[in-house]
Amino acid sequence: MATDQSPVRVAVLGCGNVGGALVDVLVRRGDEIAQRTGVRLDLVGVAVADTRKPRDLELPTGVLTDDPHGLVRRADVDVVVELIGGFEPARELVEEALGAKRPVVTANKALLAEHGGELAGIAGANGVDLLYEAAVAGGIPLIRLLRESLAGERIVRVMGIVNGTTNFILTRMAEEGASYVEALAEAQRLGLAERDPTVDVQGEDAAAKAAILAGLAFGADVSMGEVFREGITGLKTTDIDFANQVGYVVKLLAVVEPAPGGSVSVRVHPAMVPATHPLASVREAFNAIFVEGESAGELMLYGRGAGGDPTASAVLGDLIDAARNLQRGTAAPPPRIVPTPVHPIEELRCAYYLSLEAFDRPGVLAAVAAVFGAHGVSIRSMEQVGLGEEARLMFLTHQAREGDVLATMAALDDLPEVDRVGGMLRVVSPETPAPAGR
Amino acid sequence: MATDQSPVRVAVLGCGNVGGALVDVLVRRGDEIAQRTGVRLDLVGVAVADTRKPRDLELPTGVLTDDPHGLVRRADVDVVVELIGGFEPARELVEEALGAKRPVVTANKALLAEHGGELAGIAGANGVDLLYEAAVAGGIPLIRLLRESLAGERIVRVMGIVNGTTNFILTRMAEEGASYVEALAEAQRLGLAERDPTVDVQGEDAAAKAAILAGLAFGADVSMGEVFREGITGLKTTDIDFANQVGYVVKLLAVVEPAPGGSVSVRVHPAMVPATHPLASVREAFNAIFVEGESAGELMLYGRGAGGDPTASAVLGDLIDAARNLQRGTAAPPPRIVPTPVHPIEELRCAYYLSLEAFDRPGVLAAVAAVFGAHGVSIRSMEQVGLGEEARLMFLTHQAREGDVLATMAALDDLPEVDRVGGMLRVVSPETPAPAGR
Repeated sequence: MATDQSPVRVAVLGCGNVGGALVDVLVRRGDEIAQRTGVRLDLVGVAVADTRKPRDLELPTGVLTDDPHGLVRRADVDVVVELIGGFEPARELVEEALGAKRPVVTANKALLAEHGGELAGIAGANGVDLLYEAAVAGGIPLIRLLRESLAGERIVRVMGIVNGTTNFILTRMAEEGASYVEALAEAQRLGLAERDPTVDVQGEDAAAKAAILAGLAFGADVSMGEVFREGITGLKTTDIDFANQVGYVVKLLAVVEPAPGGSVSVRVHPAMVPATHPLASVREAFNAIFVEGESAGELMLYGRGAGGDPTASAVLGDLIDAARNLQRGTAAPPPRIVPTPVHPIEELRCAYYLSLEAFDRPGVLAAVAAVFGAHGVSIRSMEQVGLGEEARLMFLTHQAREGDVLATMAALDDLPEVDRVGGMLRVVSPETPAPAGR
Repeated sequence: MATDQSPVRVAVLGCGNVGGALVDVLVRRGDEIAQRTGVRLDLVGVAVADTRKPRDLELPTGVLTDDPHGLVRRADVDVVVELIGGFEPARELVEEALGAKRPVVTANKALLAEHGGELAGIAGANGVDLLYEAAVAGGIPLIRLLRESLAGERIVRVMGIVNGTTNFILTRMAEEGASYVEALAEAQRLGLAERDPTVDVQGEDAAAKAAILAGLAFGADVSMGEVFREGITGLKTTDIDFANQVGYVVKLLAVVEPAPGGSVSVRVHPAMVPATHPLASVREAFNAIFVEGESAGELMLYGRGAGGDPTASAVLGDLIDAARNLQRGTAAPPPRIVPTPVHPIEELRCAYYLSLEAFDRPGVLAAVAAVFGAHGVSIRSMEQVGLGEEARLMFLTHQAREGDVLATMAALDDLPEVDRVGGMLRVVSPETPAPAGR
């Protein structure tokens, strides 16, 4: 394909893991990309904190600068790629670029989760692209799926494994019987978890992505703080083993689905996924997004959710899109995102797994079952394992209301026969649920 | 999103399974689609063979016609959707529409596999879209992935489970120990296989899709007849069981990858896939495409590869794309597809599984091993199972050249100690291979 158009001049803000990988591709493979896509991308500036820091990159002379604001305003910049991350100065720079009618490509999930609606408004008002394929699941082209392929589709539910660190830990716990602490230590040793792993293991990273997903799939403007969030730090190997024995795999899921009254349920929590479900086969640090559409049926996208190269690949896809749109004088249709109430977690209805440790004496099961019954929670199956003087009881319930399950757990904890109420897991039903509400 | 544009007038050719589902969505959900996407799609005509046939569809009065040529030429038609299938009159109608500068959306894989390059040329010359997301894997948005998300990516290999009928049969054989004949009968009973299943079980359907994939992923113009093709009719439950025992699952794969000398390897055959590989978890009639990119790493798309609703959903995505492009006065960049030599299957290099039945007497293994050695095929592991007076020997080889493996099989067949040379399966290596050739 001949490049019959003038080059598109690109400014990159930030040159870390992802920025470095992108800059490297632009410099080394510019000719090939131009030949393949008809778009010539010229790297005109790279903003970094310290221009004298040694870098393992071949850069055109003079592209480095420590003045990102100056770079964004330069007359010879056509597209801005923001890879600094965090809130400031990233937000300010993105706003400046959009205000100057320059399309922006970013991989900044925190910024989008917190200010996505606002930034989309600025992009729309200026008629330029704001593209962020790399923000939700690194190299997985989820946004194109939701915005383009499923543009006319009524989406029923989105469930994602959107955090590679926690999925690696859960894989090790399930397949090797490692404890949470052991698996986390291995993830840290391999560079898959930070020394302070809070953002990953407490589900904060996944919650930011869930908020973005709510906007993409259902046009719901939800902020990160509104997302119900439960991490994996409380998971026990015994609960994971039980799940495996009865045909499930435990995964940390981000779930978004419409709920009654025009609300949306947006939540992050460990869940029991049927072993035959495609999400169950997502191992190690991989990510996947499972989308259920009314006509399209079940779709899943699987890939690397993080890492410099895969993320840079997604950024490059956006960059080519933005460049093509510039050359045609168009922009991607801005998403329609409106404030939407979030469905309270107490009102969630699904099947549950509960485990508890009780003193092994006659009448215990009767007492425990009575508590379930009193709260309207119906038991589907029970398994008991002896532990010396105690027994571990594991229950799977029929579909129940989460508020009732929580009340059941509190009441069980008050029973003299019960030593300790252990794990609680939400169970993903194998079938696509009937679309709820709106 | 308000529809600030005039409606886009749609003509649909064919009203079978997919056409009916599409027409139904356009009629029932037109307002919702307009609100969600900003594109108002007006159904102005539906060409069918018999306008008086009773149909379970609410259609606007006067849209049915038995004159597809007249419909394509009507002045009030903006976009043409071809869902007749087969070669003629589909090819003629698509050419007429493109020649009249009307974008065409089609799900016709046979037409594209045979005349794709030519039709793309006509679309390019007329500056209009020719979109066919539904042609390769029904509801799976593969083409958008390859053409847009991975536009700048160097793709290393594409492997797909692109035929739901055969995947259903293989799932039943692996999970329930059914024979090929039993599993086929069940697929026919469930409406998943035709009464004459040749096109599916002999790999013809998958070969057409492989030819299209070669163009999408590597810009290679390959015709269906050039695709190496081996179906599933010769598979034995014993071979599938052995594969399962040693940690593999047997799948019918369409594989496309660059090969030495600027050629491309395009082939369809059963293969042993490691059980931990994402493709191994694709069960029942589902499809999936696994793409390995140099930067993006491993990506997989999973979904329903056939069926009226999922296919219509993919067609609708294309239709919205074509309508948006019309409104902006642009067209999707035409793919660059050039004639490319096809790598001979004899030159394929991978690991192989071979099974044979031999008379159970001393010296057999030595004689058999000598034949492997003489042809330069190195044995990685061997397993022997007694069968009364005979024994079944099962071999996994190290990486070998297919021509040498075929010669080994022929020579084994000539050994007096060997009763019968049984199954041969290619083995997918767990790691992404180093990019070969170009």
